[in-house]
Amino acid sequence: MIRVGVVGGTGYTGLELIKLLLRHPEVSISLLTSRDESMPDVGQVHPELTRRLETRFSILDVTRVEDQIDFAFCCLPHAASAEVIRTLVDTGIRIIDFSADYRLNDVETFEQLYLVKHPDPERVGKVSYGIPEFFRDQIKDAQLVANPGCFPSSALLPLAPLLAENLILSNPIIVDAKTGVSGAGRKANLKFHFPECNESVMAYSVGKHRHRPEIEQILQRFTGHESKIFFTPHLISMNRGILSTIYLRPEKGVSVDTIRSHLLSFYQHEPFIRIVDRPPATKDVSHTNFCDIHVAEDRGMIVILSALDNLIKGASGAAVQNFNVMYQFPEATALI
Amino acid sequence: MIRVGVVGGTGYTGLELIKLLLRHPEVSISLLTSRDESMPDVGQVHPELTRRLETRFSILDVTRVEDQIDFAFCCLPHAASAEVIRTLVDTGIRIIDFSADYRLNDVETFEQLYLVKHPDPERVGKVSYGIPEFFRDQIKDAQLVANPGCFPSSALLPLAPLLAENLILSNPIIVDAKTGVSGAGRKANLKFHFPECNESVMAYSVGKHRHRPEIEQILQRFTGHESKIFFTPHLISMNRGILSTIYLRPEKGVSVDTIRSHLLSFYQHEPFIRIVDRPPATKDVSHTNFCDIHVAEDRGMIVILSALDNLIKGASGAAVQNFNVMYQFPEATALI
Amino acid sequence: MIRVGVVGGTGYTGLELIKLLLRHPEVSISLLTSRDESMPDVGQVHPELTRRLETRFSILDVTRVEDQIDFAFCCLPHAASAEVIRTLVDTGIRIIDFSADYRLNDVETFEQLYLVKHPDPERVGKVSYGIPEFFRDQIKDAQLVANPGCFPSSALLPLAPLLAENLILSNPIIVDAKTGVSGAGRKANLKFHFPECNESVMAYSVGKHRHRPEIEQILQRFTGHESKIFFTPHLISMNRGILSTIYLRPEKGVSVDTIRSHLLSFYQHEPFIRIVDRPPATKDVSHTNFCDIHVAEDRGMIVILSALDNLIKGASGAAVQNFNVMYQFPEATALI
Amino acid sequence: MIRVGVVGGTGYTGLELIKLLLRHPEVSISLLTSRDESMPDVGQVHPELTRRLETRFSILDVTRVEDQIDFAFCCLPHAASAEVIRTLVDTGIRIIDFSADYRLNDVETFEQLYLVKHPDPERVGKVSYGIPEFFRDQIKDAQLVANPGCFPSSALLPLAPLLAENLILSNPIIVDAKTGVSGAGRKANLKFHFPECNESVMAYSVGKHRHRPEIEQILQRFTGHESKIFFTPHLISMNRGILSTIYLRPEKGVSVDTIRSHLLSFYQHEPFIRIVDRPPATKDVSHTNFCDIHVAEDRGMIVILSALDNLIKGASGAAVQNFNVMYQFPEATALI
Repeated sequence: MIRVGVVGGTGYTGLELIKLLLRHPEVSISLLTSRDESMPDVGQVHPELTRRLETRFSILDVTRVEDQIDFAFCCLPHAASAEVIRTLVDTGIRIIDFSADYRLNDVETFEQLYLVKHPDPERVGKVSYGIPEFFRDQIKDAQLVANPGCFPSSALLPLAPLLAENLILSNPIIVDAKTGVSGAGRKANLKFHFPECNESVMAYSVGKHRHRPEIEQILQRFTGHESKIFFTPHLISMNRGILSTIYLRPEKGVSVDTIRSHLLSFYQHEPFIRIVDRPPATKDVSHTNFCDIHVAEDRGMIVILSALDNLIKGASGAAVQNFNVMYQFPEATALI
Repeated sequence: MIRVGVVGGTGYTGLELIKLLLRHPEVSISLLTSRDESMPDVGQVHPELTRRLETRFSILDVTRVEDQIDFAFCCLPHAASAEVIRTLVDTGIRIIDFSADYRLNDVETFEQLYLVKHPDPERVGKVSYGIPEFFRDQIKDAQLVANPGCFPSSALLPLAPLLAENLILSNPIIVDAKTGVSGAGRKANLKFHFPECNESVMAYSVGKHRHRPEIEQILQRFTGHESKIFFTPHLISMNRGILSTIYLRPEKGVSVDTIRSHLLSFYQHEPFIRIVDRPPATKDVSHTNFCDIHVAEDRGMIVILSALDNLIKGASGAAVQNFNVMYQFPEATALI
Repeated sequence: MIRVGVVGGTGYTGLELIKLLLRHPEVSISLLTSRDESMPDVGQVHPELTRRLETRFSILDVTRVEDQIDFAFCCLPHAASAEVIRTLVDTGIRIIDFSADYRLNDVETFEQLYLVKHPDPERVGKVSYGIPEFFRDQIKDAQLVANPGCFPSSALLPLAPLLAENLILSNPIIVDAKTGVSGAGRKANLKFHFPECNESVMAYSVGKHRHRPEIEQILQRFTGHESKIFFTPHLISMNRGILSTIYLRPEKGVSVDTIRSHLLSFYQHEPFIRIVDRPPATKDVSHTNFCDIHVAEDRGMIVILSALDNLIKGASGAAVQNFNVMYQFPEATALI
Repeated sequence: MIRVGVVGGTGYTGLELIKLLLRHPEVSISLLTSRDESMPDVGQVHPELTRRLETRFSILDVTRVEDQIDFAFCCLPHAASAEVIRTLVDTGIRIIDFSADYRLNDVETFEQLYLVKHPDPERVGKVSYGIPEFFRDQIKDAQLVANPGCFPSSALLPLAPLLAENLILSNPIIVDAKTGVSGAGRKANLKFHFPECNESVMAYSVGKHRHRPEIEQILQRFTGHESKIFFTPHLISMNRGILSTIYLRPEKGVSVDTIRSHLLSFYQHEPFIRIVDRPPATKDVSHTNFCDIHVAEDRGMIVILSALDNLIKGASGAAVQNFNVMYQFPEATALI
C-alpha cells in the first residue's frame, strides 16, 4: 500500500481526487491537509465523503511528512504550491502538483502571468508535464510531475500529434473553449454566484487567459517548433466539462482523412483517448477520464472537437493516471 | 409623472423593479441609490440596463430626497431599511419597503428573528401589508406599505381566504416550498456558488425560517384567529420561481369542490390570481406578476399548489401593483 | 466470473448498470439486449460507453439465454418485463427485475395502477423486494428479486424502521418528493423536453402516483400493519437525485432524539445508509449508492429528509447491491 | 387598432410573440391558428397565457382571413409557411414570415438546404429581409417581410457594417455560436430530452447548418460582395440566448479601434444595438430585444462577441420591431 497525502484537499479537484483514490486498491489516504485550521472532519468539508474516510483534515507539517506519506498530491493554489513543494522535494517523496507552478518552460512567463514571484525558480522548465500520452517515459521516473491545466489538456491532446507531424499549420490555431463552472474553483465570488451563471453564457479573459501560453509552450516542448494559439474560454451553465472547438488549416496537400487517421493511429493504444465519429457531448465524458476527439471539415477548414471532464481528465483523473505511470500500475487502475 | 427613487437598487429585486418601472407610463426614475460609493453607472451594476436609463447610482442624501422624488421604493436589507425609512417618512413622501422591517405585528418577534434592535419600533404593527388582494383599502391611503416576503405571498394567497371562511383546519398546515436561488439575493456566498446549487436540491432552515412567523401573523391579521404553519423551504437549481405545496385538512363537511369554488369566487375579479385546473409549473408564472393556484385532493387531504415568480409577484411586481393601488392607476399598469 | 446479461439496456438505468458492472471484478457482461433491431453497437446507444465494452446489443433469444448468461438484470418496462421473466425463470438463471411487475403484494393493485393484464400473476406477492437493508435474508437465496422503485426506496428507508418500532403515527405520513428528470426515462416526450423542464418546478400525479401504493404495501410487508401515505412527486430541473421531505407525528411520548437514535442504531452496520446531522443535498449522494437521512423537528412535527440518486441507490446501484447479496460478495463491491 | 393574426402560434416563438403583442397598444390579437384541431384554448397550449387572451386557437381558413385580420405573423415551419403565404398575399394583408422560405436570394439554395420543393418560387429573392438596422426603408413599404434566422441575426449585426466598409477580411470569418435549447423548437425529440441536454455542451451540424448560407447571402445582399463564413453551432444547457464568438482579421492597416468606432457610429441611433465594453453574457439580453456586441483583439486577430435572445431579437422581438417599422410606430413600442 502506498501511503498518499492530499495537500490542500478542500476544493473540487481535491474532492474528485479523494473519490478516485478510494477506488484505488494500492493506495491508502494517510494525510489530508487544509490551510483552514477549523475543519477537521472530511464530511464537514465534503458532505459527499461522510463516513467514507477516517482521515481528518490537518495542517501540513513538512517536518513530519516523511513519516506520514510516500506520495503527495499537491492541490494548493499557484505560488503556495511551489512554496511547499520546494521543501517536500528534499524529503524524497514523489509529488504530483496540480498548480501551474511547474508547467511552464520559463520563470519569466510564469511571473508575468501569475503576477507573483516564483518561490522555486530553479526547478521551472525541468519538471515533467503530466500528459502521459506525450511524456510517459519522463513521468515514469520523475520525482515531481506538473499536472496539466484543464484547457491545455483539451487543446493539446488533439493538436500536439498533428503539429509534430507537420500535418497542420501552426498559425493561426483558434481554440474556442466552453467550460463548466467548477473550473473556477470552490470559492465564493459574485461572478460564479448561481443566478449570475445559470441560464447564461459568456466569454472571459479574451486573448488573455493564462492557459494560452501554457498550450503554446507545451506544443513547443513536444513538437520542437512554435505555434500561435488564439484562445477564448467561455463559461457555461453546467458544473463540469470542457468542450474545445478548434479551427485550423491543414498543411498543403493534407486531407482531413489523413488528419483523422493520424490521430487514430497515434492514440490506438491509449486507454483514455477516443477518436469518435460524431461531435462529442461533454456528458459523454463526464465523470470519466476519457477525452473524446472528433475531426470534421468545412470547405478546407479543419474543425476539431475535443471533450473532457475538467475535474477528471482535466485534473484529478489525469493525476491518478500519472500516479499509475509513476508506480507502473495498470494505467486505468481506479479510473474505470 | 411621478418621480420615484429606488433606494438600494443593486440587487435582483432592484433590477426587476427598475425594469418594470421603465414600462410604467406615469413614472420617471429620478433617483437610484447604492451604499457602494464606487458604482456610478447603472450598466456596470446591471449590464442588462446598459443605455436604458440615464440616472446614475448615488449615495442617498435624506436631506435632499424631498426635492428629488415623490415616491421611494426601499430595497435595503432589514434594519438598514427602517433606519432610513423612519427619516424618510417625515419628509411626507410615500414609500414601499421591501424589507421585513414593517411586516410583523410586533417588535419582539422581529428582534428574535432578525437578531437586531429595531430602529423604528413605534411603527411596527401599524403598517399596511402589501397584498392588495387582502388589504387594498388600507394600501390605497397608506404612506408606507410593507411589501410582503416571497414565501409568505405564495402561502398566504391560497390560505388566507380559506381560513377566513373557516373552510380548513388551522393546524397543522404544512407548507413545503421550493425556491429558485435568486431568492437568496445577490451576494457571493459559498452556499449559492454555482456548482454547490446546480444539479442539486436541499431543504434549509427546517422549522426555523423567518418567513414562517410572517405567514402566521398575517393570517391572524386577516382572519382574526391563530393558525399553525409547518414551513420547509428548499433550494432548487433554477434562478427564479417559488412553488409551495400545501397540505391541510378541510373543516368537517367541507368538500374539495367548496374549497376550489371559494378561491374561484374570492379571486374572480383579481387580475393576477389564477385558479388553474392543472398543477402549475413555475415557468407558467416566470417573469410575470401572476400567482397560479391549483387545488387537489388525496383521500381527504387537500393539496394546494401555489406558484409565483419570487422576484415579481414575490417582490418587485407586487411592489408596482401596490404603487398602482396607492395612486389609483389601473392595477396592471406596467405588469403585463 | 459470473456471466451477466442486461436485458433492455438502452435506457438510463441500463447505462448506469453497465457502468457499475464494468467495475465489478467478478462479472463479465455477456449479453446486452434491446428490442430495437437496428442498434448493434453500444457506443451508438450510449456514447459514454464507446470502446469500453465489446458486447453488442442483440435481440433477446430466450431459448439461448441459458448458454449465454448465469444472471439477468431485466430493465424492461412493466408488463414487458414479466412477459420475459416468466420464461426466463424456468431456465434456472437468477434475475433482478427493475420493473414494477413483482413489487406489489397483489395482482389487483398492479392491474389497477398499470392498466394492463399481468402476464405472470401467480408469482406476484411471492417475490423478494430488493431492499437489502430490510430483506437481506430473503434476497440472499432468491432466484428472482424485484428491484424497488426510486421514490419508494427514498421513503421506505427512513419510514420502515420507525413504523416497525411504533415510534411514529402511521397516518398521516406526508411524503413530498422532488426528482430529477432522468426518473422519467429516456424517451422523447414534450413534458420532458428541455425548455419545458429547465428553470421550472411542478408537481405531478398528485395523489395518484403509482409509487404510493408500492410504499404502503412494502411498509405493511415489513411492519405488519397499515399506514397511510400522502405522496406528491415534483419534477425539478436537474438530471438526477431524489429528495423526499417527510412530515409525520411521533407516537405519544416519543422524542425526536429517540427517532434519530433508532435510525442510527438500525443502520449502524449498513454500508450505504448515512444518518447525517445536516439536511442532505442530493449532490451529496449523486453518482453514489448512498441514501442520506436527516431527522429534524418543528414544534412536535417530525420532518425527515431523505436523499438518494434515483439512478443508483434508486435503481442500478441497488440492483448491484442485491446482486452482491445474492452471490455473497462484499456488499460494496463495484459501488465505491 | 390593427387586428393581427398569429398563424401557427403553438411553438415558442408564437408564445413570445403573443406576449409582446399583449403589450402593444395598437394591436388586437384577432386570430390564432394551429394545425392541430384539438386545441381550442390558449391556456391549454401555453399555460403562461391562461386568462390573458380570449382568442382561441382555430384552423386557418384563408377564405375568411381578410375579414378577420389586417396583419399576419406567420410562424409555420418552412414550406408550410410559403404554402399559406402565397395565398395570403393575394388578400392584400401584410405579413411577416418567421420561416426560412423567403430569406434566401435564390430557390436553388433553398431547395438544396431544406430538401423540399419551394411552394412559391417566384417570390424568392424579392422579399425584404427583416433586419431593420440594415433594410429599414424596404421594410417600411413591404407587404411581406422575411424575419431573419436567430443565428444569422447574431452574426450579421456585427459583420455586415464592417464588411460593407471593407474594414475586415471577408474570408475566413469563423462564427462559433452557442445557443439555448429553445432554438430547436417545441417538439419532443430525444436529442432535446432534458437529461440529454442538461449538464452538457456539444457542437452539431458542423459545417452544414442551414443558417450559414443565409448569413453569406445576406452579407452579399448588404455589402455587394462575397464572404466566407465558417459556422459551428453549439447546443448548451440553457433555455434561451445565443452568443456568437466571431474570429476575423482586419483589412491591412485597420485597427481594432477603427472597427469598434465604426460599429459605435453605425449603431449610434439604433434603439436595440449596444456596443458594450465588456464581453456580454446572454443573460444581459435575455427576455429583451437587445443585441450586445463587444469587440476585442488578440495579437492581430479580432474577436467579436455578439449576444441576443434567440426568441426575442432572434425571432419574435425582431418581428414586432419590423411590424412597428411597417406601421411607423415608434420602433420600441411593446419592446421595452
